[in-house]
Amino acid sequence: MWVDGFASDSLPVTDRGLNYGDGLFETIRVEHGGAPLLERHLSRLRTGCARLALPLPGPQALRRELSAACDGMEEGILKLVLTRGSGGRGYAPPEAPSCRRVISTHPLPDYPRSRYRDGVSVRLCTTPLGTHPATAGLKHLGRLDQVLASMEPPAGTAEGLMCDASGQVIEGIRSNLFLVRGGQLLTPDLAGSGVAGVMRGLVLDLAPSLDLEPVIEPVSTDDLVRCDEMFLSSSIFGIWPVREVRALTGFETVGPATRRLMSAVAALGVKQWAP
Amino acid sequence: MWVDGFASDSLPVTDRGLNYGDGLFETIRVEHGGAPLLERHLSRLRTGCARLALPLPGPQALRRELSAACDGMEEGILKLVLTRGSGGRGYAPPEAPSCRRVISTHPLPDYPRSRYRDGVSVRLCTTPLGTHPATAGLKHLGRLDQVLASMEPPAGTAEGLMCDASGQVIEGIRSNLFLVRGGQLLTPDLAGSGVAGVMRGLVLDLAPSLDLEPVIEPVSTDDLVRCDEMFLSSSIFGIWPVREVRALTGFETVGPATRRLMSAVAALGVKQWAP
Repeated sequence: MWVDGFASDSLPVTDRGLNYGDGLFETIRVEHGGAPLLERHLSRLRTGCARLALPLPGPQALRRELSAACDGMEEGILKLVLTRGSGGRGYAPPEAPSCRRVISTHPLPDYPRSRYRDGVSVRLCTTPLGTHPATAGLKHLGRLDQVLASMEPPAGTAEGLMCDASGQVIEGIRSNLFLVRGGQLLTPDLAGSGVAGVMRGLVLDLAPSLDLEPVIEPVSTDDLVRCDEMFLSSSIFGIWPVREVRALTGFETVGPATRRLMSAVAALGVKQWAP
Repeated sequence: MWVDGFASDSLPVTDRGLNYGDGLFETIRVEHGGAPLLERHLSRLRTGCARLALPLPGPQALRRELSAACDGMEEGILKLVLTRGSGGRGYAPPEAPSCRRVISTHPLPDYPRSRYRDGVSVRLCTTPLGTHPATAGLKHLGRLDQVLASMEPPAGTAEGLMCDASGQVIEGIRSNLFLVRGGQLLTPDLAGSGVAGVMRGLVLDLAPSLDLEPVIEPVSTDDLVRCDEMFLSSSIFGIWPVREVRALTGFETVGPATRRLMSAVAALGVKQWAP
């Protein structure tokens, strides 16, 4: 772990990233000591810095630090957290903030090969995803909705899909969502919430060369049952085909209303199981 | 500054408060070595912990630490940050998280007496306040919307009012909003966003004894111009009467469309100023 270029595993309690979620992060997949999507990650970071008026660290120095961190790593994850640094109590940042960067490396999760081969089962989360137009699309540090969604019973699924309060499907907890419908490649509009993933950007860029027309628009749960294919994208796991979408409530257990109706029907002497 | 009861000014970079905004905070006003609203702060913290499934530190130990921190302080601010502690990369928390508490003290801002005597000028922020039903009302660590609103030109005002994306007025950047209309004391509904302030709770509790009927419902910008009185509440500054609400754009300078029209009228030879 490095803080501002020096080996360190701690940072000041005055850091605005801790106190206000005032910062951005990137999780970057490393392969053979390099990061194939590094430029896309840096580009998203630049966009985020501009939107938050965060002074971006010198890009050459940042590239050097990131390279040094993943040097010799066969595979893994490089995480960069960029905060607005320290600044007293109160939301207003200091006039000339000195940003703080934290770089750490992590092992790659051991994803089963079957997720790529056979697809995954996903569930609809009940935690609503917030709508925050001022920071939509950014990978900022305030990720409490995702934390809460991660705490829902996973029910044997690989990922959860999150909807905003109006019921529009926005993204996976840690991935973006794509639907294939005819020749169209549809992904939810992220103008109000969600993270514009680096792998999402790559997939959208690749689509035309694969005869798929990229379409960015609101996606409803209706759309989930009216498509030809569905997949998730992530710069960490790549692409997972989606095999099924489970609505959490009522699929794993017999719900209370259903149970009462079953009992009522049984009470009439009507058999409900095969003889 | 104290981290988990020990004097310290740093915390691990693995802290989930930093990485995901996974935690809560309280800013508590200290008077004569004590905190008059401490029980209300602890009560809100308890509610927040329950909603986020954060294990609350033992309340007696916490009270003791907070008391020790403000012991001998004539006046000031006690800040408590409670995070879900350390837990590797990924949104899902560890099974048995060990929460981390950070206590710090800060000087009270030197607010001019005139704000209490003559009231304050407030502005409408252009940064939209996010809607996040899963965490609405909580004082959680993801406060980037407030940071961005704080960076808007203050234009000589003491506080900014924030509206959600649908234009409903929710709260001040660092305070809650109240309108008096007839015998009613109206404050915005915080079911979708906002922080349920400790001083807001106190004001709502006091209202009936002052012949004011507390009403919690959506507040529009229309309501701002159709009320008898307006004030802000905060556990740090107390109550500030509002003297005027400024829409930021067009009040401070001559806007571009207005300027063009003024020129066009002038070009017709029509005088626009007193002779």
